Amino acid sequence: MRLNSLKDVFLEELKDAYDFEKQIVKALPKMIKKSSSSQLQSAFEEHLEQTKNQVVRLEKIFDSMGQTAKASKCEGLRGIIDEGDDLMGEDAEPTVRDAGIIAAAQKVEHYEIATYGTLATWAQELGMQDAVRLLNETLEEEKTADKKLTEIAKRGINVGAAQRRAAA
Amino acid sequence: MRLNSLKDVFLEELKDAYDFEKQIVKALPKMIKKSSSSQLQSAFEEHLEQTKNQVVRLEKIFDSMGQTAKASKCEGLRGIIDEGDDLMGEDAEPTVRDAGIIAAAQKVEHYEIATYGTLATWAQELGMQDAVRLLNETLEEEKTADKKLTEIAKRGINVGAAQRRAAA
Repeated sequence: MRLNSLKDVFLEELKDAYDFEKQIVKALPKMIKKSSSSQLQSAFEEHLEQTKNQVVRLEKIFDSMGQTAKASKCEGLRGIIDEGDDLMGEDAEPTVRDAGIIAAAQKVEHYEIATYGTLATWAQELGMQDAVRLLNETLEEEKTADKKLTEIAKRGINVGAAQRRAAA
Repeated sequence: MRLNSLKDVFLEELKDAYDFEKQIVKALPKMIKKSSSSQLQSAFEEHLEQTKNQVVRLEKIFDSMGQTAKASKCEGLRGIIDEGDDLMGEDAEPTVRDAGIIAAAQKVEHYEIATYGTLATWAQELGMQDAVRLLNETLEEEKTADKKLTEIAKRGINVGAAQRRAAA
């Protein structure tokens, strides 16, 4: 493959995003199951619905380019998800596992923030205004999801520490 | 391994960071070599020096915990770096390759932002004030590096587009 133009790399990155969103749709149910905090479960459930919609947005962009939606194997996110899987397989105290699951999820969010930021910048240069709008909608959802996870992490750690103090 | 406490996951994450910083020290020289923009090369050269210092900060934190600095294989970043390697191996127009290299580098930056954000939150809860300071110093460097790459990307794309218009 020769990458001659910005449109070529844009399309490659779009296929990458299409793959990782599908990986995330598959990974979230396990993360919900393994979380002990109901707040964390709700956040992941909400994000699962958002992610399904993000897949649809990508399909709209492929369509606007006259392309069939196609996924190319995203090794970057695969490694992050594998690490999260390893962590969820460890024997862990529930609040500690929650802290680890949040850390893994925030790595996923940041991978998406980096990718959608790039795609939005490129779409802007390519004059694809509808794509810019769709990509920025997803980008904002990812940033909001990341902030929410930070809040849950801080609250969860405090609750865990308070419980340990009460038990001591 | 059983993860009983926040300190256990903190130490695991610290080993992960120690591994990925070393992976980045190895990866940056190739990224410098493959970049065609002198601005991009300078940004990576500066970041290489910062990264070496970030390794030292991690060693200080291990030391403060009475632990020998140890790396545990970070699969998350490995996947991102492998993808960047694949891209750099493609036949590409130089400004298009630069755009792709920046995209890969921003995924690396965001992986680090997520990890250091988590580590700083946990260090705060663990009452490790010196570690909080060191981790936040690195976190700010990563955020600044990410912003600088966005600026170079926007400028680079515009220059590339102008050149294509002039040549047309």
